[in-house]
Amino acid sequence: MACAQTILTQELAEEIALVDVEEKKLKGEMLDLQHAGAFVPRTKITADTDYAISAGSDICIVTAGARQREGESRLSLLERNVSIYKSIIPRLVEYSPDTILLIVSNPVDILSYLAWKISGLPPNRVIGSGTNLDSSRFRFLLAERLNVHVQNVSANIIGEHGDSSVPMWSSVTVGGIPLNNFLDKNINGFEMQSLRDIHTAVVNGAYEVIRLKGYTSWAIGYSTANLTRTLLKNQQRIHPVSVYAKGLYGIEEDVFLSLPVQLGRSGVQGMVNAPLAEEEKNQLQVSAQALWQAQQGLSL
Amino acid sequence: MACAQTILTQELAEEIALVDVEEKKLKGEMLDLQHAGAFVPRTKITADTDYAISAGSDICIVTAGARQREGESRLSLLERNVSIYKSIIPRLVEYSPDTILLIVSNPVDILSYLAWKISGLPPNRVIGSGTNLDSSRFRFLLAERLNVHVQNVSANIIGEHGDSSVPMWSSVTVGGIPLNNFLDKNINGFEMQSLRDIHTAVVNGAYEVIRLKGYTSWAIGYSTANLTRTLLKNQQRIHPVSVYAKGLYGIEEDVFLSLPVQLGRSGVQGMVNAPLAEEEKNQLQVSAQALWQAQQGLSL
Amino acid sequence: MACAQTILTQELAEEIALVDVEEKKLKGEMLDLQHAGAFVPRTKITADTDYAISAGSDICIVTAGARQREGESRLSLLERNVSIYKSIIPRLVEYSPDTILLIVSNPVDILSYLAWKISGLPPNRVIGSGTNLDSSRFRFLLAERLNVHVQNVSANIIGEHGDSSVPMWSSVTVGGIPLNNFLDKNINGFEMQSLRDIHTAVVNGAYEVIRLKGYTSWAIGYSTANLTRTLLKNQQRIHPVSVYAKGLYGIEEDVFLSLPVQLGRSGVQGMVNAPLAEEEKNQLQVSAQALWQAQQGLSL
Amino acid sequence: MACAQTILTQELAEEIALVDVEEKKLKGEMLDLQHAGAFVPRTKITADTDYAISAGSDICIVTAGARQREGESRLSLLERNVSIYKSIIPRLVEYSPDTILLIVSNPVDILSYLAWKISGLPPNRVIGSGTNLDSSRFRFLLAERLNVHVQNVSANIIGEHGDSSVPMWSSVTVGGIPLNNFLDKNINGFEMQSLRDIHTAVVNGAYEVIRLKGYTSWAIGYSTANLTRTLLKNQQRIHPVSVYAKGLYGIEEDVFLSLPVQLGRSGVQGMVNAPLAEEEKNQLQVSAQALWQAQQGLSL
Repeated sequence: MACAQTILTQELAEEIALVDVEEKKLKGEMLDLQHAGAFVPRTKITADTDYAISAGSDICIVTAGARQREGESRLSLLERNVSIYKSIIPRLVEYSPDTILLIVSNPVDILSYLAWKISGLPPNRVIGSGTNLDSSRFRFLLAERLNVHVQNVSANIIGEHGDSSVPMWSSVTVGGIPLNNFLDKNINGFEMQSLRDIHTAVVNGAYEVIRLKGYTSWAIGYSTANLTRTLLKNQQRIHPVSVYAKGLYGIEEDVFLSLPVQLGRSGVQGMVNAPLAEEEKNQLQVSAQALWQAQQGLSL
Repeated sequence: MACAQTILTQELAEEIALVDVEEKKLKGEMLDLQHAGAFVPRTKITADTDYAISAGSDICIVTAGARQREGESRLSLLERNVSIYKSIIPRLVEYSPDTILLIVSNPVDILSYLAWKISGLPPNRVIGSGTNLDSSRFRFLLAERLNVHVQNVSANIIGEHGDSSVPMWSSVTVGGIPLNNFLDKNINGFEMQSLRDIHTAVVNGAYEVIRLKGYTSWAIGYSTANLTRTLLKNQQRIHPVSVYAKGLYGIEEDVFLSLPVQLGRSGVQGMVNAPLAEEEKNQLQVSAQALWQAQQGLSL
Repeated sequence: MACAQTILTQELAEEIALVDVEEKKLKGEMLDLQHAGAFVPRTKITADTDYAISAGSDICIVTAGARQREGESRLSLLERNVSIYKSIIPRLVEYSPDTILLIVSNPVDILSYLAWKISGLPPNRVIGSGTNLDSSRFRFLLAERLNVHVQNVSANIIGEHGDSSVPMWSSVTVGGIPLNNFLDKNINGFEMQSLRDIHTAVVNGAYEVIRLKGYTSWAIGYSTANLTRTLLKNQQRIHPVSVYAKGLYGIEEDVFLSLPVQLGRSGVQGMVNAPLAEEEKNQLQVSAQALWQAQQGLSL
Repeated sequence: MACAQTILTQELAEEIALVDVEEKKLKGEMLDLQHAGAFVPRTKITADTDYAISAGSDICIVTAGARQREGESRLSLLERNVSIYKSIIPRLVEYSPDTILLIVSNPVDILSYLAWKISGLPPNRVIGSGTNLDSSRFRFLLAERLNVHVQNVSANIIGEHGDSSVPMWSSVTVGGIPLNNFLDKNINGFEMQSLRDIHTAVVNGAYEVIRLKGYTSWAIGYSTANLTRTLLKNQQRIHPVSVYAKGLYGIEEDVFLSLPVQLGRSGVQGMVNAPLAEEEKNQLQVSAQALWQAQQGLSL
């Protein structure tokens, strides 16, 4: 609902169709959004348990899934979510064969892989929200620390969404200036360690919110709206999201991982050649193997 | 949270302070909003159980209150909410003596009266969200039915927020044209009854959402943001909201009721002389007496 | 250029094609807009003396025409503009047979009639900017005088664009309240005459700007963008614009005059039945006859 | 006027005061903007030949100056502009001692120096629009060529505004990826030369517009609004603008040159340590000496 409401407020779609199994709650949410009609741009809002109302969607955002419990690792959610996806994905693709699937449920990398396998869609049209939110938090915290505007900070976190994600320190720039140069001039004696702690804060952020309020909603809603804007408005922006990664950076497995890619109206429009240190490449490859192992147990 | 998130998305405040008694959930919500920092305008978001963080607020939005249960009338909520307000209002006013109180909890008219009595604020600085949402739904549904833009429909629902609210049919205009003239030309044979059903739909709307999802959130969030914009940006717009009504339209009791008033930076800036039919005036007076009766049982 | 630049800033079109006879100046203006590419939404901007670049336009805005000279009446411009329109209109319609023609040049009512006759388009797809700007100025000045938000004032000026335009005083509403009721309560002793002077100020406004800076540009640019938004986004808003008026309000001539109509993606979507006093109807009919007389001399 | 109109449309100021020597034209422009009141955010617009109306300005944008003639070098404009600045600057600072001066007239680097000397303001409060527009054009053209979103391209042009400006090729990044890495993967065989031609196109752009339409207006209007937003909203963004450069990058003269700096509510908030190649540093120093020579002839 946070995704739908943010997309509504930001005027990103002419029609929003909500599909869920809980008919009563679903209709209540639909009416609650519809009642705001005088305050928001004219948007058609429908809801049904029948996937037919999603027919012809330009983008399908999948947030379904068992909710991550306090302290639960993203990987441990997996089993509970496989059967859900087997029920959802084929029906979405049946009604919208030309759609882009944007996967938000966790563990996002494996579920994106799963959605790709089940859907039969070409890999450029299956995207996991991955580290888009992590990278945004990362940029925001760096901007706060360095006291610059967040749009002046260019920085990505890639890899597996979760504990083993990889911050691309070597290519962080501030106002187009490499981080090290920026620090030299601006923050004499600044301890690099305090910047590195930011990555830890990002990784722990979602866990902390789940521990406190039971789930995450607002931030992932904004992140999803952010990706939806780039995709539907064909903005050709570069985002770190979970994509089919085989053959890149020495990854040899059939896995999805977050990498910086260019997104547009047809989904993933192109890979970007991120300059990785050896250690960063190794981390990616280790994550790829772990994901591949986890996927072996799945009966597709 | 829907109020806070919509105010954040729409860039209406430089700082948002969340106060609640549930410390853990509160901090979770704060972090979840803060994590969206890269996607929204720069806004300082704080949260605490201590009212001190609200010090110096330009506006205090009070959504606290026992939640309306399925089928529960707005009036029956009253007793559960009086003691909550006795605890909240004095502390808000202590820390922000120049604030505007915007009351959202139900029953909104009596709680607005209560907030006024408890706070000791002048009546122009205590406002209940009242029928602002009802009137917006009313305009929206009329616009849909007549197939015009919602901003071309001028129409208000006034009186008690709830079953006995009064639609001001006699002054509905469409594109500046009185409704009857508009219908003459545009919708020959259109049944006026189907328009009148719209008022019923508006009154039942909130009950329906509560029955289905257990509470209302999105629409009232947008309505609250809409009022906040008018107040903080000093827009001098006319809204139907719950205000101190004694002395107006033959109302002789110390009550709050929704009437069209002009809002700006200092709260209620002026009353608007709505042309009411005798029957409409009578309805207002009956509601005023009922509210007054209900207030008699309260120990302030 | 003020129209094009405002449409660009407000993100109303995916492509803007500029056509003019002065090739050098035209290319300079195109480049000057293109150079702002990093500051504005992605919009394709083209320019040519060849009408072919306008092919497939959803809307053609015609601002061509001899410029109104200081003290020159709008009607006296006519002769100089007929031959220009005979050259422009057929080529626009040839390349965009499904277009809407939005006529801005003065005298706008006669030129709209001319564009309709020359183009062979159905009357719903030929619209003159007419009194849209006059009405907006009227609303704005009323709002200033009454100290309310301009969107709370519903008021129209109709008829011939110029000295004989007709303010619809009888249906002015403020916050949905008839003006007289509003004044009663709010402005005791307010002289109605000072409100009536507002119409005079509106009529003289354009002449004054022409006298001072030689031409009008910014306000008419914003007004044109305002109409473009309603038309292209299919907003079904009601605007007073110059439309084919025969058969309405006792007008028996083949003329264009400003009347409140509903606009949308297909142009004029419907007439609105404005309640006019006898005197107002008479004024309209007198203007219609005067326009009809003026049109008799034209060789089409 | 393009600056004022864009600032108005983008809702960047609560009040805009226009000062000029041509009283008649000035009043015409003011009225033309005021007439758009119903279409734009509520902004107070005043105009006078008397600088008193500018009193208390947060920012003073100076566009006065003899207009650059076709083929005229920016430096040759100098003499005509010195006396103008001697008349303007002291009166602006007299009425707004805490203002930021944003210099737009050309040659912008020398006039910024002049404004600083005449005003007696601290150097952080005198800023020339410098290469902000050039850099934006540069980013836009790179984004077009590489087919990515313009906000993904980080690239600056620094130095003297004009023929000898310096593109910082070595720190261009695309989506946070150094340009060379980006090209490797995406555009095999792409000729670097065609990218380098982009700098030439940027440098020639303004001359071309002046040759064609006689002056530049729209793009510099948008660029000025862009800087105004960063300054007034305290956004801490990094822009390449003309600032006091002595002591930086080996520059030993009292000159203004465009360098990437962080801007906020108090003007220049900090320098950014741009990594320059030796050749680039040399270019800066040569420009600095040339500017210094040119300034020697001025009688302050």
